Amino acid sequence: VARPTPLSGFPELLPAQRTVEQQVVDTLRCVFELHGFSGIETRAVEPMDQLLRKGETSKEVYVLRRLQEADASTDARLGLHFDLTVPFARYVLENAGKLDFPFRRYQIQKVWRGERPQGGRYREFTQADIDVVGLDTLAFHHDVEVATVMVEALRRLDFLPPFRLQVNNRKLIAGFYRALGAPDVDAVMRAVDKLDKLTPDRVHALLVETGLTDDQADLALRLAAISSTDGSFADRVRELGLTDPLLDEGLAELAALVEGCAALTDDRVEVVADLSIARGLDYYTGTVFETRLVGAEHLGSICSGGRYDALATDGRTTYPGVGISLGLSRLLVPLLGAGELTADRTVPSAVLVAVVTEDERPLSGAVATALRGRGIACEVAPAAQRFGKQIRYAERRGIPYVWFPAAGDGGGHEVKDIRSGDQVGADPATWTPPTEDLRPQVVRRSTQ
Amino acid sequence: VARPTPLSGFPELLPAQRTVEQQVVDTLRCVFELHGFSGIETRAVEPMDQLLRKGETSKEVYVLRRLQEADASTDARLGLHFDLTVPFARYVLENAGKLDFPFRRYQIQKVWRGERPQGGRYREFTQADIDVVGLDTLAFHHDVEVATVMVEALRRLDFLPPFRLQVNNRKLIAGFYRALGAPDVDAVMRAVDKLDKLTPDRVHALLVETGLTDDQADLALRLAAISSTDGSFADRVRELGLTDPLLDEGLAELAALVEGCAALTDDRVEVVADLSIARGLDYYTGTVFETRLVGAEHLGSICSGGRYDALATDGRTTYPGVGISLGLSRLLVPLLGAGELTADRTVPSAVLVAVVTEDERPLSGAVATALRGRGIACEVAPAAQRFGKQIRYAERRGIPYVWFPAAGDGGGHEVKDIRSGDQVGADPATWTPPTEDLRPQVVRRSTQ
Repeated sequence: VARPTPLSGFPELLPAQRTVEQQVVDTLRCVFELHGFSGIETRAVEPMDQLLRKGETSKEVYVLRRLQEADASTDARLGLHFDLTVPFARYVLENAGKLDFPFRRYQIQKVWRGERPQGGRYREFTQADIDVVGLDTLAFHHDVEVATVMVEALRRLDFLPPFRLQVNNRKLIAGFYRALGAPDVDAVMRAVDKLDKLTPDRVHALLVETGLTDDQADLALRLAAISSTDGSFADRVRELGLTDPLLDEGLAELAALVEGCAALTDDRVEVVADLSIARGLDYYTGTVFETRLVGAEHLGSICSGGRYDALATDGRTTYPGVGISLGLSRLLVPLLGAGELTADRTVPSAVLVAVVTEDERPLSGAVATALRGRGIACEVAPAAQRFGKQIRYAERRGIPYVWFPAAGDGGGHEVKDIRSGDQVGADPATWTPPTEDLRPQVVRRSTQ
Repeated sequence: VARPTPLSGFPELLPAQRTVEQQVVDTLRCVFELHGFSGIETRAVEPMDQLLRKGETSKEVYVLRRLQEADASTDARLGLHFDLTVPFARYVLENAGKLDFPFRRYQIQKVWRGERPQGGRYREFTQADIDVVGLDTLAFHHDVEVATVMVEALRRLDFLPPFRLQVNNRKLIAGFYRALGAPDVDAVMRAVDKLDKLTPDRVHALLVETGLTDDQADLALRLAAISSTDGSFADRVRELGLTDPLLDEGLAELAALVEGCAALTDDRVEVVADLSIARGLDYYTGTVFETRLVGAEHLGSICSGGRYDALATDGRTTYPGVGISLGLSRLLVPLLGAGELTADRTVPSAVLVAVVTEDERPLSGAVATALRGRGIACEVAPAAQRFGKQIRYAERRGIPYVWFPAAGDGGGHEVKDIRSGDQVGADPATWTPPTEDLRPQVVRRSTQ
């Protein structure tokens, strides 16, 4: 039997790596729930007609077929979801009568894309989405809310590299392009969106292809070059001399967003109004978000989103939404794979309870039960080997403490910190390790 | 646009229902980790040849195809996993050099079966598995360990109905059938396994079809009728007058298992040696487990498992394992669907911070930030409506407290418990609700 090999595009984690991912998920959940977001999960599959509504992604869908199915057309065709927005919009429509609006939800799940894998792209990956959805209307302060919630979550993940949340507003840029006289505002937006991949000269050429004059294209590029970490971007936009009611509305919203996030910035977190951000292919109608890791910009945006005037609609009712989606795998898998992030042990156990003889295994079990009753994770040694071997068992796993139970004939319990070698008397009913030893800790290693 | 309808066999939960499921998952994780089990996740897909190794399940597999794939045979065929054992065995082989043995892992993930849905069967459902895997050998005390860990986890879920863990041992029954002179021991096991679906007379006939005489079939049924919550089953087996070394080994193991679990039984949890349990179609070689909810036996076994002498093998090394798998959806979805279990609110928020005027929204935000800083989940009212409307917003979601921030012109903060109507002065820096109000609570309702 050949040893199985990994499947390209389907990353899997070793236990210590999974510990890091799990702690990230726990932190996200904690922050999302502190802000009143309800957790939901949707099924992994959607009918193909739902998944194919956006032509752009049709090539990336995994279609399901039951193995014994004679004819695929006899069954409603199902595909794996490729994001969490399409299923969430469907969930809102399906359950609208049972939900209270505005509805805040978070959703942390795997998604699948049936594409050829390439650097940083996965066929299976985890996303963490938050959205607020209203019934017919949704106040702008929710745009500020989703940004601040995600920034607060990322701030708490203090083992991550610093990051930069780049915000813009479609009303601002669409109003500007309209005032400019652009014959195809959407085409301008898609061209500007390519600025992170193409040179300004190339984008200029694309802008001219959309029907802009050279001067108009210059102005569009001058707008895209504006950025600031405070409200000063608005003055620089006004210096370009164009006016439009939609532009004004976008300027006011973007200023409110930057101001609302200001209290959250620190040396690891920057929030920038960046007027080059357009999210070209998505159907956003106001605020747009992208997020880059400082020093790892090549990973692309690890956290994107924005405002939809119609996240979903059933013809009579419209559900506007604003949300932001964190690419958990895109963020973590490269850091874990490079060894930059790991955990300081491979098991949850803080303590290995040694076994003196197999007959005395129940004594060790009783110690473990007492420790677990006070929330201390532990395991009992698998065999009554000599203590040196049992200590090495703990060392290999990174378990910091080995407990030597009192022998049946009396004598006290002792516990050894195998990092320092310190060994002290201890009572299973009261001994507690320092808080930092209770759970595995995420460790950041410089790989430079 | 027609409102979307649910897909049969793909259960989805409303937010309050998901809260219950999430609390169950959190409890399981907590107990598994206290016992030193490492959490892992495996990818959702496996190569089809891995999934088809057991012929029995081949009809239940969902095969994946990329939408734009010209010819399915050009790509390695992938299918969705139908359990967590096949992927775990593959993970162990693939990563054997990087894992420490004995390796304890838990895994809580969705699995898929492409079958026609019927009562209590799902096409997508969640399982929670624990296994201990050794390198070449694995001591019997791990059989006791996995049973006690799962029982402890189920005990903590005190909102569930009482349950009965039924344990048996394949060595015991195989040794007995061998001593009996059965020509096909496996066929006897598969016939006895049908006792929960067929009458004893029907099973008797099946036993005779395997080559047993009427008297031998009677003895096999007398063995299967034995059960006890203590070690007395062994005496009743010996009274049947057969002896065999494998039978003796099985009797000793089963006695040790029942004794090891004895300390965990209470009025909600029974552990029974039940000699009718055979797990006919699975490849267990010693201990076998099934678990039924008392009063909901029609749901079948919600938690099953056992000992494999070879969970995995690469030809040179064998990895024996013992594990148990909890069918989380099978357990919860009927209880949630019937309304027997729910949560007392639909959002995590313990507090709704009211908004006096839109201009004063930042005051409410500051209160919310102070409360969140001390771990109190809250949300700020979406609009500065009159307070009666804001209170009803909280009521609809089950949020127990509404906070009225001090107006800009002075005056103290007040917080109202909207269940009792009590309203008191409060300081955002110190006020804390009672612990039971901090998080949504699972509520059990009698539906009789």
